[in-house]
Amino acid sequence: MRKAVCLLSGGLDSATCLAVARRDGFATYALSFDYGQRHILELDAAARVAQAMGAADHRVARIDLRMFGGSALTAGIDVPKHRSAAEMEAGIPVTYVPARNTIFLSFAMAWAEVLEAPDLFLGVNAVDYSGYPDCRPEFVAAFETMANLATKAGVEGKTKLRVHTPLLHLTKAEIIRLGVSCGVDYGLTHSCYDPEPGGRPCGACDSCLLRAKGFAEAGVRDGLLDRYGL
Amino acid sequence: MRKAVCLLSGGLDSATCLAVARRDGFATYALSFDYGQRHILELDAAARVAQAMGAADHRVARIDLRMFGGSALTAGIDVPKHRSAAEMEAGIPVTYVPARNTIFLSFAMAWAEVLEAPDLFLGVNAVDYSGYPDCRPEFVAAFETMANLATKAGVEGKTKLRVHTPLLHLTKAEIIRLGVSCGVDYGLTHSCYDPEPGGRPCGACDSCLLRAKGFAEAGVRDGLLDRYGL
Repeated sequence: MRKAVCLLSGGLDSATCLAVARRDGFATYALSFDYGQRHILELDAAARVAQAMGAADHRVARIDLRMFGGSALTAGIDVPKHRSAAEMEAGIPVTYVPARNTIFLSFAMAWAEVLEAPDLFLGVNAVDYSGYPDCRPEFVAAFETMANLATKAGVEGKTKLRVHTPLLHLTKAEIIRLGVSCGVDYGLTHSCYDPEPGGRPCGACDSCLLRAKGFAEAGVRDGLLDRYGL
Repeated sequence: MRKAVCLLSGGLDSATCLAVARRDGFATYALSFDYGQRHILELDAAARVAQAMGAADHRVARIDLRMFGGSALTAGIDVPKHRSAAEMEAGIPVTYVPARNTIFLSFAMAWAEVLEAPDLFLGVNAVDYSGYPDCRPEFVAAFETMANLATKAGVEGKTKLRVHTPLLHLTKAEIIRLGVSCGVDYGLTHSCYDPEPGGRPCGACDSCLLRAKGFAEAGVRDGLLDRYGL
């Protein structure tokens, strides 16, 4: 079985991406990050999802992005609430974490090289996304080019590292339908940027709003609502 | 004064690179990593160098690359000793750490974005180097391209992130002469991959051998030898 390193935040997109990797026949090596994020409990969701999806391994890297700050997720900046679609589309929001996906992919690349697994899976999408620069196809392509120059495997030409982004051109509703077809239990996932202490989603941050819109458009009941009796 | 983020391992090259950034008029923000390296005491050297060179700030990021291993610097693999120049040139050595420079540059990029400092300094060199893929000009160029697609600053087009590599095409002897002209005290630095507990260099790993050859060719006495009475 071919191995693939899959970035897993514990959210809707990364859970779906992991399920797609499994569907496509990969033994999955899930990688999550404790980076000082406000919604640290997404790591519990990542562990639930990795187990439910039969990941071959699941590791959590500890890095401290609070040492730089610069984001509502890693510094004392409020998470915006109740934003309209127009507001979300107007620019890069304060929940953007500087260099986050680059850092995450760099760690994935390190693990992939040691595992001799040239396949990485990343659940970014460029349609119903939150305006993050490091979720765009041009970023992913440039990362892949760089990675193949950075690594021993790339230089020796044995294998070419590839960043798979199966969700890149899907809407949130399409992602949900794809996940359901791959057996994802979305009740195990977590999306909210600013949850209550017990984990109940705020329902008002961009991430909650995009999630609710996606389930509504997909015509699917969000299992997370049942988890919290919503 | 323009700000620059400078990667600083505490070795000869990064100390010289920091000195060049200062010479060129930048306020320097030095960044080091506790990544589980065998030669962790290079961080003491980094602190000495940052202070001596008047860095505006010096931070140490803690990341654990032992979680992946795959290198003589991060796993239980012996550091090769007494290798000839021909052996060093024969391929990528086991002291290569998968994705290390990519990970380091990614963190530098995060800090640079928060500081609004589009200049990064990296002390790689492609002449007297140890065969690492992520020390080559093509890697650095690809990283820069990727970085400008990954970040808010890059996307908004305000500033273009640039990775400065002033040592890229210099021999070790030329680097040493440059450093001396910029006021570097090489007695403060540390290069050895496999030092004795008190910090005394082994004198036989690739890093020690390249350093000794560089000082011999430059016709300069290595202050580090005085530090240990060698």
